[in-house]
Amino acid sequence: MAVPRYIAAYDPRAVLDSPDFRILPKGEVPRRDPSKNLAVAYAPEAQLHLVEKPVPKPREGEVVLHVRATGICGSDCHFWKHGRIGDTMVVRDTCGAGHESSGEVFEVGPGVVGLKKGDRVAIEAGVPCGNCEFCRIGRYNACPDVVFFSTPPFHGTLTRYHAHPASWVHRIPDSMSYEEGALLEPLAVALAGIERAGLRLGDPLLICGAGPIGLVSLLAARAAGATPIVITDISQSRLDFAKQLVPEVKTVLVERGIEPKAIAEKVQEEAGLPSGIAIALECTGVESSVQTAIFACKFGGTVFVIGVGKDFQNLPFMHMSANEVDLKLQYRYANQYPKAIRLVEGGLINLKPLVTHRFTLERGIEAFETAVDVTRGAIKCQILDDAF
Amino acid sequence: MAVPRYIAAYDPRAVLDSPDFRILPKGEVPRRDPSKNLAVAYAPEAQLHLVEKPVPKPREGEVVLHVRATGICGSDCHFWKHGRIGDTMVVRDTCGAGHESSGEVFEVGPGVVGLKKGDRVAIEAGVPCGNCEFCRIGRYNACPDVVFFSTPPFHGTLTRYHAHPASWVHRIPDSMSYEEGALLEPLAVALAGIERAGLRLGDPLLICGAGPIGLVSLLAARAAGATPIVITDISQSRLDFAKQLVPEVKTVLVERGIEPKAIAEKVQEEAGLPSGIAIALECTGVESSVQTAIFACKFGGTVFVIGVGKDFQNLPFMHMSANEVDLKLQYRYANQYPKAIRLVEGGLINLKPLVTHRFTLERGIEAFETAVDVTRGAIKCQILDDAF
Amino acid sequence: MAVPRYIAAYDPRAVLDSPDFRILPKGEVPRRDPSKNLAVAYAPEAQLHLVEKPVPKPREGEVVLHVRATGICGSDCHFWKHGRIGDTMVVRDTCGAGHESSGEVFEVGPGVVGLKKGDRVAIEAGVPCGNCEFCRIGRYNACPDVVFFSTPPFHGTLTRYHAHPASWVHRIPDSMSYEEGALLEPLAVALAGIERAGLRLGDPLLICGAGPIGLVSLLAARAAGATPIVITDISQSRLDFAKQLVPEVKTVLVERGIEPKAIAEKVQEEAGLPSGIAIALECTGVESSVQTAIFACKFGGTVFVIGVGKDFQNLPFMHMSANEVDLKLQYRYANQYPKAIRLVEGGLINLKPLVTHRFTLERGIEAFETAVDVTRGAIKCQILDDAF
Amino acid sequence: MAVPRYIAAYDPRAVLDSPDFRILPKGEVPRRDPSKNLAVAYAPEAQLHLVEKPVPKPREGEVVLHVRATGICGSDCHFWKHGRIGDTMVVRDTCGAGHESSGEVFEVGPGVVGLKKGDRVAIEAGVPCGNCEFCRIGRYNACPDVVFFSTPPFHGTLTRYHAHPASWVHRIPDSMSYEEGALLEPLAVALAGIERAGLRLGDPLLICGAGPIGLVSLLAARAAGATPIVITDISQSRLDFAKQLVPEVKTVLVERGIEPKAIAEKVQEEAGLPSGIAIALECTGVESSVQTAIFACKFGGTVFVIGVGKDFQNLPFMHMSANEVDLKLQYRYANQYPKAIRLVEGGLINLKPLVTHRFTLERGIEAFETAVDVTRGAIKCQILDDAF
Repeated sequence: MAVPRYIAAYDPRAVLDSPDFRILPKGEVPRRDPSKNLAVAYAPEAQLHLVEKPVPKPREGEVVLHVRATGICGSDCHFWKHGRIGDTMVVRDTCGAGHESSGEVFEVGPGVVGLKKGDRVAIEAGVPCGNCEFCRIGRYNACPDVVFFSTPPFHGTLTRYHAHPASWVHRIPDSMSYEEGALLEPLAVALAGIERAGLRLGDPLLICGAGPIGLVSLLAARAAGATPIVITDISQSRLDFAKQLVPEVKTVLVERGIEPKAIAEKVQEEAGLPSGIAIALECTGVESSVQTAIFACKFGGTVFVIGVGKDFQNLPFMHMSANEVDLKLQYRYANQYPKAIRLVEGGLINLKPLVTHRFTLERGIEAFETAVDVTRGAIKCQILDDAF
Repeated sequence: MAVPRYIAAYDPRAVLDSPDFRILPKGEVPRRDPSKNLAVAYAPEAQLHLVEKPVPKPREGEVVLHVRATGICGSDCHFWKHGRIGDTMVVRDTCGAGHESSGEVFEVGPGVVGLKKGDRVAIEAGVPCGNCEFCRIGRYNACPDVVFFSTPPFHGTLTRYHAHPASWVHRIPDSMSYEEGALLEPLAVALAGIERAGLRLGDPLLICGAGPIGLVSLLAARAAGATPIVITDISQSRLDFAKQLVPEVKTVLVERGIEPKAIAEKVQEEAGLPSGIAIALECTGVESSVQTAIFACKFGGTVFVIGVGKDFQNLPFMHMSANEVDLKLQYRYANQYPKAIRLVEGGLINLKPLVTHRFTLERGIEAFETAVDVTRGAIKCQILDDAF
Repeated sequence: MAVPRYIAAYDPRAVLDSPDFRILPKGEVPRRDPSKNLAVAYAPEAQLHLVEKPVPKPREGEVVLHVRATGICGSDCHFWKHGRIGDTMVVRDTCGAGHESSGEVFEVGPGVVGLKKGDRVAIEAGVPCGNCEFCRIGRYNACPDVVFFSTPPFHGTLTRYHAHPASWVHRIPDSMSYEEGALLEPLAVALAGIERAGLRLGDPLLICGAGPIGLVSLLAARAAGATPIVITDISQSRLDFAKQLVPEVKTVLVERGIEPKAIAEKVQEEAGLPSGIAIALECTGVESSVQTAIFACKFGGTVFVIGVGKDFQNLPFMHMSANEVDLKLQYRYANQYPKAIRLVEGGLINLKPLVTHRFTLERGIEAFETAVDVTRGAIKCQILDDAF
Repeated sequence: MAVPRYIAAYDPRAVLDSPDFRILPKGEVPRRDPSKNLAVAYAPEAQLHLVEKPVPKPREGEVVLHVRATGICGSDCHFWKHGRIGDTMVVRDTCGAGHESSGEVFEVGPGVVGLKKGDRVAIEAGVPCGNCEFCRIGRYNACPDVVFFSTPPFHGTLTRYHAHPASWVHRIPDSMSYEEGALLEPLAVALAGIERAGLRLGDPLLICGAGPIGLVSLLAARAAGATPIVITDISQSRLDFAKQLVPEVKTVLVERGIEPKAIAEKVQEEAGLPSGIAIALECTGVESSVQTAIFACKFGGTVFVIGVGKDFQNLPFMHMSANEVDLKLQYRYANQYPKAIRLVEGGLINLKPLVTHRFTLERGIEAFETAVDVTRGAIKCQILDDAF
């Protein structure tokens, strides 16, 4: 097939070449003006801009959303600072950031049924073709023709007005805030990990890393009945945060210079399981942490890696062989939003404490600067737009 | 192989033919005497006796336990009242009841390592051969040579002193009461169901029946992150009890004369899922309830039957075909005790509210009478022996 | 959403109301005329017609195929004779038959890439929406908006010219005949069964029924390494046919009046497996045969039903419970065509012997009459159109 | 628990300290004398001896076997040449080799039912405890108390008379030769791999390495319906041998200096699958080959490693992440012998061509020398003892 129609629809050049497009001067914090489609965008050479984009009109099957909350993801910061992730996702032009968003329906396009102006929704940022080998087997995260908003070249959802296929927004209940709606995205990541890792009720679990994904995974794993749960991090304050979220969690501080095997033993000791834990959710992507996870497992265990890290990593191959430790890794997610909504709505997962810093859309640059400044201790920075 | 040695060791005739064995006169409630190995036993013609048995001495690999708590199971009552379950399990002689027990180690046999007098343990009542086709693949509940205490002809664990293979008792932590230790058995049943049903975090669930197994399943399913959960019963008071245990559960009262399809629709409505629920745990074994469970499922759903019922049942075959609804059933459990202990210890499952009635061993007959009297509203009757 | 566009595209009324549509007089066998879009159609009151339909023009994303081979399926005959399958699929008007087809590309519509006139393809007859809950998880056979050609009201593929979405035809290699290409459809049914039944290398297997689906399942199961394989049927000649296809298969003739349990024992004896077989593929849908399959299983076995039968069936529920025999059923298939093509191309499955009777399109009525006449001993009747 | 009784029974010191034990002088090839329990043994400092051991008497539950055929495994040669595998399996004393054996029952111990003198059996060389956490869940290959004959310190089965637990020999049918009976062991290895890799009918497969395990895996994978199958090796003659075994297999010669990614592309091209293969069975343990296997997979693929290699290996972590390629590894096998016997007996796997070199027991040293000499082109060397 040729370029799918929906890809053409989201051609980033149409925005960049529009007469309504402009980059705001560095440092300018505009007054709030709901008629402007303000957005945050990364650009080559580690630049980050506030930009104004044309306000989109919904095409057939689309809705235009007023985005109300957007979280900043580690990948957003990575694109800003490093200009690429891997070899295929490269910031070659100004490119809108953000893919953890919720909002309300602002305008409904032709042919859309079941949604109306004012409906509250979460946005699933990756839109697959629906027709390829991978879409057909239900692993649409592998779709080679996916439009993933905020992954270059596609503009992201950290913008005031965003046009989206109506079938890829998910209604959220009135009991759920927009902040929570935006947090469904990292929750979807964690839930995909828990699903594919095969975590089941009563499984002893290690979570490596108490950053946003580690913490969301902790909440989800607790809801799934993992026990005991041990979490590791190099920062005591993050471990303290984890313990506030889930008081039953056991924590292991990772100190520089300690061998992975020694940390693994500490994990097993803390868990009270000398033969090892059943499943590890590795949320850092750091080689030594992956090794720790492997050593911490018992025979037949699974190390599931959600984190991203070095291209090549040195792993204890024969230990994995002698202990039949499986290694699995994750690329985005599929079919997690409806479940994520049920879990938050049902009260099994409380995402609210994760938002530690909030910013207006006009102060979006500051939000990014806060997110990358480790001294600020941010877990999740969100950009909120309450206008009107 | 010939009759396995461990089966010979538990030959019920050795007890019945012992000079120390006697049946207490009907109605007699003896004074508590710790030196007597008092037990409750069913006998042909729907009789139930208090009996005195010899105090066992531990053989190689065994421990003798002082049983401290034993719950009464529906199957105990069934053996008492009906004298059989199926064609193979028949009460042909006086046979000790009870298999939901915990206790403390009273005496340790030769060759036993890792256990000492006074240790607190839960008893896994089914002891498999460890060597047959089914034991080797980890499904030891299928072992044809299993000794399941309380299933005729083997005497049960509702007795003051019970000899048991040391490798089939499970240490319980100090934080766990003997009552909870005894409740691990029905919890093991529920956990086996949840495991084999494939219940995962966020799955919408129906539980049919709010009796002891339904309620334990409810606690376990909640711990596993099922949501929403709907529970059905013909008794409003049991539904109220369910709601006390898990306030988020949605309840559907099953009224006589309503068609299974109509109840299924009510379930879907209550769940807010018009296309159906993902998994049903059927805990009644009643044909109309099994049908309800099938109709309540969505395409690709699973009905998992923990309950026992009529030998042959009439099922909506073509509905199952057109909706790929799988039907799975359960026979006892394997490998659930360690997990059950972790879950109670970790605070994910609180079994305590399930014990509604308590009796001394000397009043064991009264305990059974209470258990079968629906006007008493018992969930779980336990017999406790706190002597010494 | 409203009625999906692709459903509107296949509105059967457009054909029936066309001035080019006509029903040929009963008994007329027309001369072959490649310009006419001849088809076989069922109609209410158990009628079967030859009809002429307009020659379709391909719309965007479509190809028009010259259908070269079509097999007659049991469901085609059922629609003809009984006018319905279940409550939802009812012959209310003249409706083209046939969904087991292969052909060559006759004309390519706009936007189609990767296909050109003359390409040889198999037709996947069920076209799902690609966007619903079930399509997204890879179970597109559950799509509520599927267009399944030949299931009323949609006209079938037993026609000379058929317009089809280009993404739902599958190229077949030059080494594969059109007859084989058409047989990929029943093979897809069998492969879906084998996949979902969980059949693995070395599993002892029972196949119930040596009709077309049973025989295709036999070929596929042999290719999957099932061993031993036992097949049952009420017809000795069909068992003989099975033995010709796969000489290693063991056969059990089902005689009237023999109890399912007795037949099950014969199956176990023939297999040399007194504890039972692992998996049964039930291809008849007959209650007594389903019972036989259940009784023939060992503990933990799976009965997988491909056949269709009575709406409600009486099943040995407690036997299933005491032996943890799972019952699973099938509705069509998803994601089987590419695998089916690989297996035939790779020489693992030889479908050719299954076609026992061949007819021209002009003699399509005769083909159906042969298919339903048990004295003719047909396995698979195919209608071929070699014109041009 | 203390040291299990069965471990004490196989205490190697009892043999080494026996007055009947002696090491034959280097180079001596004794005359065949059936009264002598001749064996091949490795010893520290890369020595290999013919030894005479006492003829064992069967204890309770044991049979003494006359071993008739034993294959030489790569691990036997490794213990001889390198004195260890990993840190835990170390040749500290003279230790009998061999674990791929079949034989006939020579003497039956007390309590053994179902076996009699003269019965033909295959020996499962790893005897687990039957009672630990891992035995109970069916993964007895993880049993920490396993006695694996030929893994130091336990003497192997490459001996004329071997005492073995009766429940760990498997009867072989008359149609199966002792050579085939001995080959069941490497077949069990391959079958465990295929089972745990999840290989299913129609899966495109890569096999890395055409040594004995690669070739047995090829036979088993073909029997399981994998298609297409590509096999790689650095030796053209081994690839030619593979092609003789399974003519449909596609071969890729691995040339020194070619990058794993380039070889992976060749594999995909040979398979005709540009998006990659579904499963790779890696049978070399060589880092570059593991990398090749990973690069050859499509999204969602599985690399299953049967081979053993370097302790730590450098793997393309982010490629695995972006493509959700799972990595699984294997340690021995569990529950494979009955299946292996069914498959050979049923004619699905023909092991015979794998034995390329045969030796008498008296020429056992020569057999090992042949096995390690690459210029001899041996696939499988077997030692046969046809005496009497």
